Amino acid sequence: MENKRVDGRSNNDMRPLKITRFFQHGPAGSVLIEVGNTKVICAATVEQRVPTFRRTPNGESRGGWLKAEYTLLPSATATRTPRESVRGKQNGRTHEIQRLIGRSLRSVLDMKALGDRTITIDCDVIEADGGTRTASVTGAFIALVDACESFYDPESGQPFPVKDFLAAISVGMVAPPRKRVKKGQKIVLAPAEPEEPLLDLCYAEDSQAAVDMNVVMTGSGEFVELQGTGEGRPYTLAEQKALVELAAEGIDRIISYEKDVLGNHLVWRIGREG
Amino acid sequence: MENKRVDGRSNNDMRPLKITRFFQHGPAGSVLIEVGNTKVICAATVEQRVPTFRRTPNGESRGGWLKAEYTLLPSATATRTPRESVRGKQNGRTHEIQRLIGRSLRSVLDMKALGDRTITIDCDVIEADGGTRTASVTGAFIALVDACESFYDPESGQPFPVKDFLAAISVGMVAPPRKRVKKGQKIVLAPAEPEEPLLDLCYAEDSQAAVDMNVVMTGSGEFVELQGTGEGRPYTLAEQKALVELAAEGIDRIISYEKDVLGNHLVWRIGREG
Amino acid sequence: MENKRVDGRSNNDMRPLKITRFFQHGPAGSVLIEVGNTKVICAATVEQRVPTFRRTPNGESRGGWLKAEYTLLPSATATRTPRESVRGKQNGRTHEIQRLIGRSLRSVLDMKALGDRTITIDCDVIEADGGTRTASVTGAFIALVDACESFYDPESGQPFPVKDFLAAISVGMVAPPRKRVKKGQKIVLAPAEPEEPLLDLCYAEDSQAAVDMNVVMTGSGEFVELQGTGEGRPYTLAEQKALVELAAEGIDRIISYEKDVLGNHLVWRIGREG
Amino acid sequence: MENKRVDGRSNNDMRPLKITRFFQHGPAGSVLIEVGNTKVICAATVEQRVPTFRRTPNGESRGGWLKAEYTLLPSATATRTPRESVRGKQNGRTHEIQRLIGRSLRSVLDMKALGDRTITIDCDVIEADGGTRTASVTGAFIALVDACESFYDPESGQPFPVKDFLAAISVGMVAPPRKRVKKGQKIVLAPAEPEEPLLDLCYAEDSQAAVDMNVVMTGSGEFVELQGTGEGRPYTLAEQKALVELAAEGIDRIISYEKDVLGNHLVWRIGREG
Amino acid sequence: MENKRVDGRSNNDMRPLKITRFFQHGPAGSVLIEVGNTKVICAATVEQRVPTFRRTPNGESRGGWLKAEYTLLPSATATRTPRESVRGKQNGRTHEIQRLIGRSLRSVLDMKALGDRTITIDCDVIEADGGTRTASVTGAFIALVDACESFYDPESGQPFPVKDFLAAISVGMVAPPRKRVKKGQKIVLAPAEPEEPLLDLCYAEDSQAAVDMNVVMTGSGEFVELQGTGEGRPYTLAEQKALVELAAEGIDRIISYEKDVLGNHLVWRIGREG
Amino acid sequence: MENKRVDGRSNNDMRPLKITRFFQHGPAGSVLIEVGNTKVICAATVEQRVPTFRRTPNGESRGGWLKAEYTLLPSATATRTPRESVRGKQNGRTHEIQRLIGRSLRSVLDMKALGDRTITIDCDVIEADGGTRTASVTGAFIALVDACESFYDPESGQPFPVKDFLAAISVGMVAPPRKRVKKGQKIVLAPAEPEEPLLDLCYAEDSQAAVDMNVVMTGSGEFVELQGTGEGRPYTLAEQKALVELAAEGIDRIISYEKDVLGNHLVWRIGREG
Repeated sequence: MENKRVDGRSNNDMRPLKITRFFQHGPAGSVLIEVGNTKVICAATVEQRVPTFRRTPNGESRGGWLKAEYTLLPSATATRTPRESVRGKQNGRTHEIQRLIGRSLRSVLDMKALGDRTITIDCDVIEADGGTRTASVTGAFIALVDACESFYDPESGQPFPVKDFLAAISVGMVAPPRKRVKKGQKIVLAPAEPEEPLLDLCYAEDSQAAVDMNVVMTGSGEFVELQGTGEGRPYTLAEQKALVELAAEGIDRIISYEKDVLGNHLVWRIGREG
Repeated sequence: MENKRVDGRSNNDMRPLKITRFFQHGPAGSVLIEVGNTKVICAATVEQRVPTFRRTPNGESRGGWLKAEYTLLPSATATRTPRESVRGKQNGRTHEIQRLIGRSLRSVLDMKALGDRTITIDCDVIEADGGTRTASVTGAFIALVDACESFYDPESGQPFPVKDFLAAISVGMVAPPRKRVKKGQKIVLAPAEPEEPLLDLCYAEDSQAAVDMNVVMTGSGEFVELQGTGEGRPYTLAEQKALVELAAEGIDRIISYEKDVLGNHLVWRIGREG
Repeated sequence: MENKRVDGRSNNDMRPLKITRFFQHGPAGSVLIEVGNTKVICAATVEQRVPTFRRTPNGESRGGWLKAEYTLLPSATATRTPRESVRGKQNGRTHEIQRLIGRSLRSVLDMKALGDRTITIDCDVIEADGGTRTASVTGAFIALVDACESFYDPESGQPFPVKDFLAAISVGMVAPPRKRVKKGQKIVLAPAEPEEPLLDLCYAEDSQAAVDMNVVMTGSGEFVELQGTGEGRPYTLAEQKALVELAAEGIDRIISYEKDVLGNHLVWRIGREG
Repeated sequence: MENKRVDGRSNNDMRPLKITRFFQHGPAGSVLIEVGNTKVICAATVEQRVPTFRRTPNGESRGGWLKAEYTLLPSATATRTPRESVRGKQNGRTHEIQRLIGRSLRSVLDMKALGDRTITIDCDVIEADGGTRTASVTGAFIALVDACESFYDPESGQPFPVKDFLAAISVGMVAPPRKRVKKGQKIVLAPAEPEEPLLDLCYAEDSQAAVDMNVVMTGSGEFVELQGTGEGRPYTLAEQKALVELAAEGIDRIISYEKDVLGNHLVWRIGREG
Repeated sequence: MENKRVDGRSNNDMRPLKITRFFQHGPAGSVLIEVGNTKVICAATVEQRVPTFRRTPNGESRGGWLKAEYTLLPSATATRTPRESVRGKQNGRTHEIQRLIGRSLRSVLDMKALGDRTITIDCDVIEADGGTRTASVTGAFIALVDACESFYDPESGQPFPVKDFLAAISVGMVAPPRKRVKKGQKIVLAPAEPEEPLLDLCYAEDSQAAVDMNVVMTGSGEFVELQGTGEGRPYTLAEQKALVELAAEGIDRIISYEKDVLGNHLVWRIGREG
Repeated sequence: MENKRVDGRSNNDMRPLKITRFFQHGPAGSVLIEVGNTKVICAATVEQRVPTFRRTPNGESRGGWLKAEYTLLPSATATRTPRESVRGKQNGRTHEIQRLIGRSLRSVLDMKALGDRTITIDCDVIEADGGTRTASVTGAFIALVDACESFYDPESGQPFPVKDFLAAISVGMVAPPRKRVKKGQKIVLAPAEPEEPLLDLCYAEDSQAAVDMNVVMTGSGEFVELQGTGEGRPYTLAEQKALVELAAEGIDRIISYEKDVLGNHLVWRIGREG
């Protein structure tokens, strides 16, 4: 019989996932994504210009661009996180995460179809309970689709700029919560059991994980980003295989939910030629 | 007959006000305040230490302290606001507002009763449609009460650290939306009418205001902060009087709502001796 | 009999005020303003360009602009103030004050008559003994008039860019210095007496003030900025009324002095149509 | 017959690898690592203190710590890279890389055996021709071993702080250089051929790679970090498998070379109990 | 017959020099120094602590310390200088000058006699017309003497911390202003004449100088700093000799004036044993 | 008999000097300069644009420009130097040195012949054992010559942009290492002997120097920069003379070596008219 996780889930259960579109009025795409207690506002803003490096020296367009910014609200964590604007700079973790979000979304974006536009993705974490970077990728994907729909002209003969579905999930090797057992007259903690592969880690699990992996995949079941880290110990090829399979299973479910959330009209657009 | 405002309100109508307590899990006090479309997350975090300047040179406590930080999410405005952590510094408007929030809350805080604690207020604007600084003061007040309740020991003989109710509102002199009138065969804009004193300006009104005033008052009907600015023109003593009265009327209504939101138990605490 | 203030003034006395024009050689307008021991150098520099946001998207001018910067010399205060350029950023108080100075001066400036020019106001406090922000507004006003005169062409048919006189003053509710009285054989401090409204606070008064108010008014007796703060306690409507009246009295006297300092020729210019 | 790579190597050839120990006089460990044209100075400095977060609230040690810093010399790249100290901050790529280096080295470091010491790794790239982050990990590993040897007391009964060997390599899916073929009378470029898995990408290959993967492994053949990115397109599970195998093959060869470079005495130390 | 300089002086004339002591109320030493149109406020603040590097690892004192900061007021120059606190950092010229001031003053300071004190020198240039760095050294020297007198106890048996007089001056090779001569019917510029060694350059001379030298010397006629730069061309050993002699002549005169300004009591202190 | 220096040299001996050209592949000029243990990479990068201040208001060229940047690798010093990009700014010493390098090289550069180009000099110190700033000037000079040769067209009729040879050296007044002498039965340190003028100080000498001087001279034996500092005591005119002569002797030898390193072809170019 399988061990129960800290919040009662089975090893391959995901936390409840909810995406609310059109969450803010300003940006062309704006989404509130909730993954268990983790909540992120993901917005996509469209501007009619491109950065200099997207032009050739003689001014011709190399297509559009997308960049991403990410932050934790100071109040989003159990212990308050110092505000980066007060410190005067973004920290290393923030840089690492916003680069991951940017690369992931650019991988499903047709820069030529985007035209001379820059899309800025803002992921602001309202509440952090593990998996904020993967929730950001998933939420930003929906915001991106809405932002593209806001300017897309189906009569243009151009393809829709979003080429494929995209979603992200975390997996990891985590030991089950230690049980309490009777030892003679006393109740004591049982010895730690071996780590098991878990899907969609919450913060309590993430902070105990021996191995941690973030996976970003497309609707075609291919990899866009795979980042595995041996936090507590190195890990074997067999563990890697198990974790990747578990992640693929989760991403499949998220992409199904994305299709429900976007509706037939937009599902039909994605990846369709113009 | 009175003119209708841009969103259909009468001159002394406030926008719908809604405060959701316990919005986040981390901070001791956390509130989502919604004033029409304006939405701010206000959190109050308690730490068991005080800044150096709250100690005498020989280490004795001068009581606790409270400081406030404020920011707009980049996606909170109609046009995206550049992220301050990316620019590497907070701008002047942010500094001005967070100083106002800090001073306002400190005015109803009994620093001695607070003891050797620092409270950090975080106001993060999720959506900005005018009045974000006054909404921040009001929301942060509720978060502050919850934060104080989290450590207050009624057996201690100490007074509750929050001495009085506190709320804030904006008022201003704004010209009514220009009407369209028939001129011969054509429909044209009627001439601009004189400005009238309005309560609780939304963004469309704020950006057109000739005079703009932010008022922070206590439950005893006294002033904590009053900041009037002649944005488009200087203003008269008579206008000042009318605006202050209108603000007092609004603050009275907000404090009633604060009492409903906090419930009898906490209402009874505020300003009560130990 | 009225109480004497810490420096011997009556409650509605101002400190000696002296403005020296043409203090520096570089800027078009440069003034040394002395208010008691407070000394500020106020300079107005004119540039033949406007910031981007003063142009419409197709390049048309929205008129000129004015911005203000303020700082304390590290040596200007009783205890040395750390240099902001060494810390790498301006602090919140500096931001708050330079925004106040900028808004105040813009309120009497005809941006269209200013044309495609930017005026930069620099207020550098040489010695700080209370009231540096209001002295900065008053001094900068004179520097602004001189700067405008430097480029104004009376043959142009354009109005002079300065529309009205402007001055600023602080007022506050402050308790009189505690007297020493005989108690039996000993000399002791008498009990604190109630606060009284004082005009033009020096540092010793400002740091003890229960209520503090900065007022900026025009030559027509109207308000441009009014910022009241309950530093030690909230304040009543009656106190507010008394303080505003006292401030108006002081500003009236400052504007008379400004007229003496500027001389008939420039007094005649201000607010005159072209 | 296999295609030749841009520099004439076979797909599973590595570039010449050379590690010079004791390169600088100051740091306890200092290495120049050369991988083809890529050259990195890797230094390990030991300090007798630990950061605050390595102490419990009551001051007990949680063991030592290791942090890493990385930079490109401005002159190390084909086009000059702006100096980060002049820009006033490190960029996102730098943050991402130095976090990777730090995590990788910490994974083979026994923090308890390290004691109350902090090791700072400095990786300064003298010449960049692809693979600077993996060369940094490998070079820093050798510098770390030398640094630990500098303070290790074999009589202490403590284990040597470095628990296992560590090395890193890049792999990727890259299309072979396009051949020139005869088409009638003309010499033209042949159509692009499918991408193949290559070991140890140089810059020319890296900038053309469809898929890019950095792998860090231990002497026991387990994974410490695995970061795969679909730069040009998503990639399949089969490709991932091929790339991981190729990387493991390369790492095996690097670790053999590390053993030669370190010599029997230190090889014997690594992972041995005290 | 010697050429006249741009302001009518002879080659070895200095500009009028005036030092006003006790210029500000806060710092222990505060001086306004005027050298022609150049005006600098030099203040010396005393703190009862020393920086960490002035203690040995086991906490023993290595004596006191002195550091210097320098800035130009934005309004001090003909064209406004951007404010360093707004740019977020001090520029290279500022760093170079404040290091020169600090080194110069430390050279006549007895760190042991200073005891566990740090003196901070603030040189704020109110008006810049050439020679601001040398005026700063001279003015700061007087402020330093006053600051030391403020805490010096002649009964202590300790020597007075200031060991010798100190002054600074600029010299340079500058071509005389070109004369206007009659050429037939027209008035034309005569050919440029050879550069001559000038004492105490004003801005107009400094910006035209072929060679520029700043010299700091003691009351005993020895060198503390000598910085010569070939701005427009390299210079010969003979020129160097001529410039150094001219500088020594000027410094001699400045030190005489310093003695007048300080008065017998302080002149007697300087360099006297306790 | 002369005293031996700490590393066995005579007073007017220089350390072994070695310059390796074409050290990196990216920059047009790149040199590794070794002076004893001091090692600096000096690179010169050419860009086809000039900074704004090298254009007149109506866009005409004022000729090219050269700027220099300098840094110490954190691992280059005996005790690790904190990384400036992590601190977020360059320190004062860095600013001072890179200004010296820039001024020195500009003095032998014909800005008109350089045309609309900017040359950026990067001096990155790999190992610091005294004299890094003078080694940087010398090394950067060679890199500059190579960079100019990379774009120089001898057919153009333009002069070669480098007008003269340039080299730099440090000299100083340093006391000889204290001898050990027999005193009765014990070996004790002999009394300190008087300082002597030494050429090319290593770090151990530099940190003990009473007087320190850096000299930059041209191939024609003239001065470009001379910076003397009385570190431990002021110095006399006689000492200055002795030091300058010693420096000139050293520079002569360096320039001979530069000619060997550059070869006849380039030696012939330098200072030749087009």
